Amino acid sequence: MSAEVEEMLKRFQGVKNIIGIIVSDYDGIPIKSTLENQLAIHYACHMHLLTEKARQVILDLDATNEFISMRMRTSYFEVILMPSDNYFIVVIQNPSD
Amino acid sequence: MSAEVEEMLKRFQGVKNIIGIIVSDYDGIPIKSTLENQLAIHYACHMHLLTEKARQVILDLDATNEFISMRMRTSYFEVILMPSDNYFIVVIQNPSD
Repeated sequence: MSAEVEEMLKRFQGVKNIIGIIVSDYDGIPIKSTLENQLAIHYACHMHLLTEKARQVILDLDATNEFISMRMRTSYFEVILMPSDNYFIVVIQNPSD
Repeated sequence: MSAEVEEMLKRFQGVKNIIGIIVSDYDGIPIKSTLENQLAIHYACHMHLLTEKARQVILDLDATNEFISMRMRTSYFEVILMPSDNYFIVVIQNPSD
C-alpha cells in the first residue's frame, strides 16, 4: 500500500492550486501528509467523521448504493474526500481555475 | 421565499440528467420536491444531517471559514447539496456527461 500512497501523493503534488494532501487510515490517523503534523491530524479526524456520516447516509437511502467521493466548497478552499479500502485521501485546494 | 424557490426549481428542472430536486427547511421537512413524497422526506432528513455535520466540521477546522456546498458521488448518482439561509437544496443527478 505504501508505494501506492507515495505514487498518489506524487501525482497530486504536481497539480496546480493544491494546498495540502492527507492520506489517513480509518482511525483518523494520518499515514502521509504534506501539511504540518498537528493540522493533518485535525483534518484526518474531522474528515474521517464526515466520510463515515456520508457513507451511512448513502447506505440508509439505498442499501445497494455506495459512497464514492465528496467535493466540498468552503469560503476559503475546496476539500475533496476520496475513500479507498484501507485509507482515505483528503485534498485541499484553491477553487480558482 | 416561495417565488425564489419556484424559480430555482424551474431552472433546475430544465437541466439534463437531473433525477430529482428537493428544497427542504432546516428541520429536514421538504418545502418543494420533484420526487415522490416519502422519498423526498427521507432525502431531506438525511441530507439535513449531512449538511449540519459538514458545517460543523468546517467550522471546527477554522471558525472563520464557512461551508458553501457539497457534491457527492455515489455508485448510482451524484448528490449536490446547497445550503441557503432558510432552506437547503438537494439535487440528484446522473453523473454521465
